[in-house]
Amino acid sequence: MSNPTTITANPGEQVVDIERVINAPVADVYRAYTQPELIAQWMGPRGYEMEIDTFDVRDGGSWRFVHITPEGGKFGFHGSYHSVVPQTSMVQTFEFEGAPGHVSLERVTFEGEGDATRVRVHAVYQTVEDRDAMIDSGMAHGVTEGYERLDELLVRS
Amino acid sequence: MSNPTTITANPGEQVVDIERVINAPVADVYRAYTQPELIAQWMGPRGYEMEIDTFDVRDGGSWRFVHITPEGGKFGFHGSYHSVVPQTSMVQTFEFEGAPGHVSLERVTFEGEGDATRVRVHAVYQTVEDRDAMIDSGMAHGVTEGYERLDELLVRS
Repeated sequence: MSNPTTITANPGEQVVDIERVINAPVADVYRAYTQPELIAQWMGPRGYEMEIDTFDVRDGGSWRFVHITPEGGKFGFHGSYHSVVPQTSMVQTFEFEGAPGHVSLERVTFEGEGDATRVRVHAVYQTVEDRDAMIDSGMAHGVTEGYERLDELLVRS
Repeated sequence: MSNPTTITANPGEQVVDIERVINAPVADVYRAYTQPELIAQWMGPRGYEMEIDTFDVRDGGSWRFVHITPEGGKFGFHGSYHSVVPQTSMVQTFEFEGAPGHVSLERVTFEGEGDATRVRVHAVYQTVEDRDAMIDSGMAHGVTEGYERLDELLVRS
């Protein structure tokens, strides 16, 4: 049984809040969030491959990856980092290259709870419409499956 | 008589919208927004000096400057760029180094109206509290005076 993923998106607000407990210490979860070869193994839905372009995790650094669907479709995403406090929190931007100019801003927080880690994501969008479009694109599925893959990765490693 | 600056911040929302017509063509206004030696001459309140650290205006590029008050106080600000469409729009992050981790996301749009340019800024904050703190810090004063200084710069150059 995997832990539940809570995704909150109140009507009319331009925010999504995500919360998930991962059964691993903060150091391991943080590593999985910041080391490209680990990120590629869990972020996004099952069956997707991730081609890493760059992951420069520091204030002002950039990231970019391409998701390859089981059918061979390619979808690029990129952004940059702000305020990286190792094993505590980081702020990053996020842009799907299929909808250029629509950028969101995410804060990810890692909080130790015994041997586990509570991950909180607070994402704000430029408009309520942008937020709703992200929800409608199947965000919940990708996020939930991603965390299941993260559980599996952390058991393996 | 300078043109009015409209600043909209509806209660309970985490957004600020700014609108201002500048009496100069888009090419000139865009240059003043993107060339460091010009930015330093107008952005922010009168009496402040701006020390430029970096302004790398491209998707993934960073910017940083330090404002020096008439009393000699120093305030650093930095961020990064997303989706720069020359003379049309750009998206950028903004962080006051006195409140690290509180980041906002701004879209700036330039629209030609005859020989003038309508500038629109749409800024979103991580929380309503962050937005209100920015308003309470005297944002309107700095923004309005900055645009007056921009008018004066564009007449001079």
